[in-house]
Amino acid sequence: MRALVCHAPLDLRLDPTTLDQMGSHQLQVRVAFGGICGSDLHYFQHGGFGAVRLKEPMALGHEVSGVIDAVGSAIAGYRVGQRIAISPSRPCGACGFCQQGLPNHCSDMSFYGSAMRFPHVQGAFQEMLVIDASQAHPIADSLSLSEAALAEPLSVGLHAIARAGSVFGKQVLVTGCGPIGALLIAGLRRAGAARIVAADIADLPLTCALKMGADETVNLMQNPDGLAPFAINKGRFDVMFEASGSDKALRAGLEVVAPRGVIVTIGLGGDITMPLNMLVAKEIDLRGTFRFHHEFAVAVGFLNQGLIDGKPVISDIVAFDQAKEAFKLAGDKRQSMKVQIDFTQGSTEPAH
Amino acid sequence: MRALVCHAPLDLRLDPTTLDQMGSHQLQVRVAFGGICGSDLHYFQHGGFGAVRLKEPMALGHEVSGVIDAVGSAIAGYRVGQRIAISPSRPCGACGFCQQGLPNHCSDMSFYGSAMRFPHVQGAFQEMLVIDASQAHPIADSLSLSEAALAEPLSVGLHAIARAGSVFGKQVLVTGCGPIGALLIAGLRRAGAARIVAADIADLPLTCALKMGADETVNLMQNPDGLAPFAINKGRFDVMFEASGSDKALRAGLEVVAPRGVIVTIGLGGDITMPLNMLVAKEIDLRGTFRFHHEFAVAVGFLNQGLIDGKPVISDIVAFDQAKEAFKLAGDKRQSMKVQIDFTQGSTEPAH
Amino acid sequence: MRALVCHAPLDLRLDPTTLDQMGSHQLQVRVAFGGICGSDLHYFQHGGFGAVRLKEPMALGHEVSGVIDAVGSAIAGYRVGQRIAISPSRPCGACGFCQQGLPNHCSDMSFYGSAMRFPHVQGAFQEMLVIDASQAHPIADSLSLSEAALAEPLSVGLHAIARAGSVFGKQVLVTGCGPIGALLIAGLRRAGAARIVAADIADLPLTCALKMGADETVNLMQNPDGLAPFAINKGRFDVMFEASGSDKALRAGLEVVAPRGVIVTIGLGGDITMPLNMLVAKEIDLRGTFRFHHEFAVAVGFLNQGLIDGKPVISDIVAFDQAKEAFKLAGDKRQSMKVQIDFTQGSTEPAH
Amino acid sequence: MRALVCHAPLDLRLDPTTLDQMGSHQLQVRVAFGGICGSDLHYFQHGGFGAVRLKEPMALGHEVSGVIDAVGSAIAGYRVGQRIAISPSRPCGACGFCQQGLPNHCSDMSFYGSAMRFPHVQGAFQEMLVIDASQAHPIADSLSLSEAALAEPLSVGLHAIARAGSVFGKQVLVTGCGPIGALLIAGLRRAGAARIVAADIADLPLTCALKMGADETVNLMQNPDGLAPFAINKGRFDVMFEASGSDKALRAGLEVVAPRGVIVTIGLGGDITMPLNMLVAKEIDLRGTFRFHHEFAVAVGFLNQGLIDGKPVISDIVAFDQAKEAFKLAGDKRQSMKVQIDFTQGSTEPAH
Repeated sequence: MRALVCHAPLDLRLDPTTLDQMGSHQLQVRVAFGGICGSDLHYFQHGGFGAVRLKEPMALGHEVSGVIDAVGSAIAGYRVGQRIAISPSRPCGACGFCQQGLPNHCSDMSFYGSAMRFPHVQGAFQEMLVIDASQAHPIADSLSLSEAALAEPLSVGLHAIARAGSVFGKQVLVTGCGPIGALLIAGLRRAGAARIVAADIADLPLTCALKMGADETVNLMQNPDGLAPFAINKGRFDVMFEASGSDKALRAGLEVVAPRGVIVTIGLGGDITMPLNMLVAKEIDLRGTFRFHHEFAVAVGFLNQGLIDGKPVISDIVAFDQAKEAFKLAGDKRQSMKVQIDFTQGSTEPAH
Repeated sequence: MRALVCHAPLDLRLDPTTLDQMGSHQLQVRVAFGGICGSDLHYFQHGGFGAVRLKEPMALGHEVSGVIDAVGSAIAGYRVGQRIAISPSRPCGACGFCQQGLPNHCSDMSFYGSAMRFPHVQGAFQEMLVIDASQAHPIADSLSLSEAALAEPLSVGLHAIARAGSVFGKQVLVTGCGPIGALLIAGLRRAGAARIVAADIADLPLTCALKMGADETVNLMQNPDGLAPFAINKGRFDVMFEASGSDKALRAGLEVVAPRGVIVTIGLGGDITMPLNMLVAKEIDLRGTFRFHHEFAVAVGFLNQGLIDGKPVISDIVAFDQAKEAFKLAGDKRQSMKVQIDFTQGSTEPAH
Repeated sequence: MRALVCHAPLDLRLDPTTLDQMGSHQLQVRVAFGGICGSDLHYFQHGGFGAVRLKEPMALGHEVSGVIDAVGSAIAGYRVGQRIAISPSRPCGACGFCQQGLPNHCSDMSFYGSAMRFPHVQGAFQEMLVIDASQAHPIADSLSLSEAALAEPLSVGLHAIARAGSVFGKQVLVTGCGPIGALLIAGLRRAGAARIVAADIADLPLTCALKMGADETVNLMQNPDGLAPFAINKGRFDVMFEASGSDKALRAGLEVVAPRGVIVTIGLGGDITMPLNMLVAKEIDLRGTFRFHHEFAVAVGFLNQGLIDGKPVISDIVAFDQAKEAFKLAGDKRQSMKVQIDFTQGSTEPAH
Repeated sequence: MRALVCHAPLDLRLDPTTLDQMGSHQLQVRVAFGGICGSDLHYFQHGGFGAVRLKEPMALGHEVSGVIDAVGSAIAGYRVGQRIAISPSRPCGACGFCQQGLPNHCSDMSFYGSAMRFPHVQGAFQEMLVIDASQAHPIADSLSLSEAALAEPLSVGLHAIARAGSVFGKQVLVTGCGPIGALLIAGLRRAGAARIVAADIADLPLTCALKMGADETVNLMQNPDGLAPFAINKGRFDVMFEASGSDKALRAGLEVVAPRGVIVTIGLGGDITMPLNMLVAKEIDLRGTFRFHHEFAVAVGFLNQGLIDGKPVISDIVAFDQAKEAFKLAGDKRQSMKVQIDFTQGSTEPAH
């Protein structure tokens, strides 16, 4: 079997690898689809982000679906051939953060495809995986394996919404409508936001945002003052989600978010500069959001029940053998939204 | 009667002025003591702060106590000679923010001594004032009029604590221990913080912080890495109050505040630069806090009952005639904490 | 013009009445549809509920839609012929509760058709009304005036959801699926509940509950232990809404709500008996919910956008002349859900 | 060594017992003082409470302090002779509730002296104990071992306060001022309650309540309408703690708690009857509170620092040999507050 391994910036290889021995509480899974995430791109393009740097070759990927190939002897409720979404979140369960109910802050987390620790945690872009049963979430017959691979970025959005408190009946702004922002918008609509305004600097993500449930869009490249009408009466938005990572978007948000409003900021950028006096005078809350854990089950539930439709986000599906091209495509925000790799095409593993 | 009027940077004058007519729901008050606040200093030193600029002469001051001189015909419960703390917060009661229970965000606020609107709202550093009965908070016999003038900066601290959620039983860091920070520390002790660490770059405020209830102090000038021991296990503090306005303190705080911790930021500084990725990865909440409203009554209650002792904060009391010297003294953070003006000394108004 | 006036239990009359003079900030409205609420029924059947008793004849009704007939001289943004939903919530804006942002607790509330105060506040089941512009919420072309009259009971449900904190991604139980419960279920689905279980003692409301978005139903008459499977592991529900007013439902809920779960209780019943030790040992929150205020605008928004479809709740529409029959029908929970009175049929007022 | 074992109602014996083997992460402790709690009394007087019944002999007690006698080989930071407060809370750390940060709801909890599970968890009223290091909280030199045994009931109070949200600056009512209520009052004062009104039906607890920090007291036996003045304007209290277990107190509370107020109910009573319509119309939250976990460390911290003084609560200290008399005394609420057993008097174990 092979894995998609990043050795250095732009050096991505399909390396042969071996599969872990399956334990009695584990499942062996044939990977079906894998979405390319922003952090995967950072490893591919720059070898990492901030202080997080590749120090050894690492398989990428953490947004995957698959089909069960073998079931551990101690597990009930799973069967060979079952289609699943796979959660990449693997907290230890024993540290202080896990015991506080904060598994996403686990001090011994093994999140797929992360260079935050060393040795790095190898990613899920592999033809086969051995996973814990708790990572496996069966999908409905009505859901494709490609859509199932959206459960992970959707979970990021759902967790961001939870961090905001409640958005039910509220006026919401989303800046940055890439795959995470677009799935977040679907989550916001499902969470009962009264109005959702989507802002970006490109048309492709804004077109997608409308399909995902936004009420209106603002192209800040074509119309730099497009948010100004929302600044009246100290700001019209109760909640803002900043998913673009730009100072400018955050600064604009401080103008249009109401007193006591909440800005949830997603994504691991570097230093930003902001007018602290606006945050103070309007008593705004600026809140970080990081990954997710129990939201994965909720995300799969929404997809299974058809309560959220992720399909408009998937712009491209590329065969495993062409993975490097997939990464190049994913890096072009004006051409693509979510690019997925199809592990069933070009796989060297015989079907079960 | 005279008022202490700022005409331009460093141009502070004792100008003659006239008293408003007292209405039937109002009180006429002889001002006793007035504390010099950071914003008063900004007007005196620089003519304002940020976009807020003096455009006409303005009487300064909003931290005052006094003695009732006359009582409006429609009011019960007040008497001539009664000693009171005076709230400078005068929201309109009719705007959308007042109706939402957010009077500190009132869109028609008349807060004493503020150039945020034009014509400016004249301040309370006057020998006499006409006030609404709702501004008057009687003080206990055990409380001096000088201490009563601390009710206002204490209210700022109490509101900041309310913004943090709850500090009861928590580990708390305060950076910046000037008068606001020191009174905040007294509030935190009263609010049941389990441990309070106070940090500053000078010894005078830290000595005061200990008297106000801090458990330990860190002088970041002498010991720049003094907070490093608190960074273990992703950060030891549940809540941080940033009252210094410095980027450096905020950055240090992001290292020592625990995942899901809260940083309340006080004071109207300008732009700051911060590592957004730390706020994101630890899911920290950065919250602004601005003024107060109903906390004024609570502050007077704590002072009246002896549940908070503000005396250690008062470093200097200066006669009204020497007001300009008082401002110079207040500007020297290594020499003074709270500098108060004594309006009963040097007043040209005959006693009642 | 005529109003539908309750003089005593079972004594309902179409009395002639006169219209108030329209002020410059008001609108004159031709009432279109009016839904019969549980409290209207209580006045009709028993002359009141609890300590609230009819002491003089009172027009009933507070769930109404209409068409604007005349526009006050000082108002912009409304026009004759415009179709609107009408909010019955008329808080004073000046009392302490209004100033705290709690208008539904206004101490001088004039809610349509309420005998809580004396003289009673006359209801909206009248051919014509003069209303404040703030009560008028324009509806979309796609929405019928009959559906618009659901905005009020939907608002009750939305406020109940707000009282629960957040239901996003949660497991929710609703006991009592009459019109309020059914509209609440639609609100819960829109608010992102992960699973909604609906329980009642009759089939008609449960059939409606499924149409409104419930995932599964339990008929507690046919299957008294139908909730038992949800009691495992200390209880499977995060949130429960109790809209039946029965001790038995509340007691059942305490068995199936998880530790730290929330039970929101709707409806003004009398004394209930409950096992306090279960509430204590599981640290459950039992929260009252009462009316609504700003939720009315949100409810109209959801109906206008098609984000909530209320149609399945409307079981009967009866002409104004047959209002007494409408009340009898509304009193038979096994035959009807929401019964509405059509004021356009049988009206004695000439069309504009 | 001996343990104080309840065999049946009123059948309390000093039975010989053997000590567990100490593990490498454990401590061997000589018990010093043990307070008699309401649940101990229930076992002694009635053989249990509600569905919780003695089915085999069980050592009672869970409020104990002691002196370390031996230290496991794998532990640092403890020494023989060290004086400690001992937490009786022993959650499993592995169940779903522990992983959610709710250890007090642990489904495999081994809380000392509890018949909730079978075999029962033996209590701490033993001359010697083997404990986990995580249960041991060193006390300050200034604190007596008798006071240290108050850490447990104080923790119950601190957890109840946490359940209320925040009490800082609020108006608070406490009904039922036995040892739990009295320590709760000390916690409320430390947590910054603005006013604390204490109500009971006997004078002894009310006298103690004043010493613990209450502002005023109401004897509801002598003055059944003593709370009526607080009913004005829909109720004056923001938060109420109900620690008496009486319907009457809860009913009185619903009259005097403000709209959106919180009532925290402590103690495992049986069925209660209450006017649900008041809870609904005022949107009151009735919240259960059960035990504690991390609050134990906070309680010891407050006692160690002198921020809470528990001494006024201790009414009687009785030698181990006279334990049965101690239980009789503890059952007489008009004669005693907290009754403690002194294990150092009459102990058969030779000192180390």
